[in-house]
Amino acid sequence: MPSFEQYFLMNTDHVKDYVKANIHTFKNAQNITCLEIGDGNLNYVYRVLNNDTNDSVIVKQAGTTARISDEFVLSTTRNKIETEALILQHTLAPGLVPEIYLLDETMSCCVMEDLSHLTIMRTALTKFETFPNFAEHITDFMVNTLLRTSDVVLNHKDKKELVRKFINPELCEISEDLVFTEPFHNQFNRNEVTPGNEQFVQTHLYSNEELHVEVAKLKFHFMNNSQSLLHGDLHTGSIFIDQNDTKMIDPEFAFFGPMGYDIGNIMANLIFAWARGDAYEQKEFTEWVEHTLFDVLDLFDTKFNKAWDEYATEVVAKNSDFKQHYMQNILKDTAGMAGLELARRIVGLAKVKDITTIEPIENRLKAERLCLRVAQTLILNPHDFSHGGDYVTALQNARQEEKND
Amino acid sequence: MPSFEQYFLMNTDHVKDYVKANIHTFKNAQNITCLEIGDGNLNYVYRVLNNDTNDSVIVKQAGTTARISDEFVLSTTRNKIETEALILQHTLAPGLVPEIYLLDETMSCCVMEDLSHLTIMRTALTKFETFPNFAEHITDFMVNTLLRTSDVVLNHKDKKELVRKFINPELCEISEDLVFTEPFHNQFNRNEVTPGNEQFVQTHLYSNEELHVEVAKLKFHFMNNSQSLLHGDLHTGSIFIDQNDTKMIDPEFAFFGPMGYDIGNIMANLIFAWARGDAYEQKEFTEWVEHTLFDVLDLFDTKFNKAWDEYATEVVAKNSDFKQHYMQNILKDTAGMAGLELARRIVGLAKVKDITTIEPIENRLKAERLCLRVAQTLILNPHDFSHGGDYVTALQNARQEEKND
Repeated sequence: MPSFEQYFLMNTDHVKDYVKANIHTFKNAQNITCLEIGDGNLNYVYRVLNNDTNDSVIVKQAGTTARISDEFVLSTTRNKIETEALILQHTLAPGLVPEIYLLDETMSCCVMEDLSHLTIMRTALTKFETFPNFAEHITDFMVNTLLRTSDVVLNHKDKKELVRKFINPELCEISEDLVFTEPFHNQFNRNEVTPGNEQFVQTHLYSNEELHVEVAKLKFHFMNNSQSLLHGDLHTGSIFIDQNDTKMIDPEFAFFGPMGYDIGNIMANLIFAWARGDAYEQKEFTEWVEHTLFDVLDLFDTKFNKAWDEYATEVVAKNSDFKQHYMQNILKDTAGMAGLELARRIVGLAKVKDITTIEPIENRLKAERLCLRVAQTLILNPHDFSHGGDYVTALQNARQEEKND
Repeated sequence: MPSFEQYFLMNTDHVKDYVKANIHTFKNAQNITCLEIGDGNLNYVYRVLNNDTNDSVIVKQAGTTARISDEFVLSTTRNKIETEALILQHTLAPGLVPEIYLLDETMSCCVMEDLSHLTIMRTALTKFETFPNFAEHITDFMVNTLLRTSDVVLNHKDKKELVRKFINPELCEISEDLVFTEPFHNQFNRNEVTPGNEQFVQTHLYSNEELHVEVAKLKFHFMNNSQSLLHGDLHTGSIFIDQNDTKMIDPEFAFFGPMGYDIGNIMANLIFAWARGDAYEQKEFTEWVEHTLFDVLDLFDTKFNKAWDEYATEVVAKNSDFKQHYMQNILKDTAGMAGLELARRIVGLAKVKDITTIEPIENRLKAERLCLRVAQTLILNPHDFSHGGDYVTALQNARQEEKND
């Protein structure tokens, strides 16, 4: 049995030994199964099951390059950031993230609660499943993890120590490139535009100078505004869900940035689900998405205001006009960031299967243009999106434009 | 002789031994003089002279509490931040900061170039001396240290490592309290309002809700916007000067924050000099200050634009509309931050002798009200201050208001 005292990339046999050595309930286990179940872009994920007791855990290990591409050489310390983010999020939003059993900096891995009885939300949405509790849960998660890691609530010295702890240069660089630059400049020639939409992308993204200015503002805002501890990659592929539970996973992109980045990612990924539902004429499903878009933003607003009154410690934040200003900026950021996520998932390197699996191709092309139209409106006019209903209106307008063109 | 292997607060004899042990040119020195010359609020500063060779150095050591008050218990690591800031600033703006000979983390001290042939700028300004090169030098310093530590120029991963290195919770807390909160809320009851101006301060600062909202915005901007490596305390008491040279010293408040904080501090401290000159009817002097206010902002703008074109590496910063937007925000921040500095030096704990030494008292009260009027305009209408001339206009308007009242 290896000693696990020096980093190496484990295989399933190593992981079995590792769990036996480190997790109390597996100490004398005789009959263990270990399966690699990772399907993300970066890491290796193992499910370890004690067949005699039915106990199970997840082991997640970071490799020295991204799984998706050897181009991304990454420090394995990202596992530490992810695990520490989960530990903190667990204290702020209990029940909404997996529980961590072990953080191992040497092996760059962690052992955590097995959530494999739940489904990845994106997968379920592609089958037009609906989740009545999602808006409640995601807004609980966002209000508690975002507001309560901001200077509104935290002691400012403690907050600065957390900012230091969660500085995340490598993963932030991936977002800076893939979200904030390439979709509009294609400077590394890594974009993949679906054949048939080249001219549309050229006109609406690559040659759109007005858009480029707004994107530049959002990029610098992302890089420089250490407002709150973000999840950093809060899309429907980072959420485990069923009819009762919602669990946010994979916060390895966590860092202190603008709240609107997380909230905007949720809004954009709901829009992908809507666009797919619309392409397949799933009216009941698209109506649920519309209600959810509406609820996510409006519940966030309501709960955020309530939590502010309950938790704010900062003297100058006792001013209600300042609170209103602060919320307006969050909503404005949310719109812009949602627009960026919509654009990058259509033309950039990392696509979403809500859209890529739409058939026939003509319908996919139409759905892509719809998302890009909404993206453009969100980025150029973020002040117009202060309620969830404004997103629904933008979707309907974009669909109408698409029909008229 | 102590071994200097464990921290203790040195006296002049220790400092002599320390310099002999650590600085090559003092190795065999027989005839050394050491004098404590510190007059700042926080640290101990020694000038060490080799009487045989006339070589001299400065030794600066951080104590475990601030010199000004035992209330401020501070980590001695602030000396490390200060010294590392000076080393970095020296590479970016050579000739405009003292050269560092030694950084000693154990003893929380540094040894640096002796600049005591120069005068502290504030002292000279109180005697109405003028400095024709000041605007050129300070704008060279600010453009080079601010722009070139921003994401416009630095590799973003390197910049994040610098942000981490310069996270400065304790000193930032002092600014957050003394600059951004107490002057408007007096929540620790530490303000000192000159008798005669109590009602004016009550009306214009303590009861001014509209002002409080803008101050809250500026406070969160200061805490969360990691734009550039700031000096962090760039007032005329942190500048050594004569007719040829200008050297910026004491950056122990250095951290990554909004550029406007440094620039605004310079503008505000020039306004204090102007208010004193005006009180003593020193027309030639006030005209020089007016020219300097004008030049500082306009030279900064011109040089910043030129340096941007020369040094920008960030793809999205190649857009000229974004550059213009970026500059507009710097100028807006500058105005707001200048307003804060004006207010806090009049009513807060740390005053400036340009104003406190004005006699008779009636003239001092008038100068204080003038500064507070300008402060209010700057904080409430920062968009109106895009040129140096706008500051001069604000001064003239405030003087007129004061006459009319």
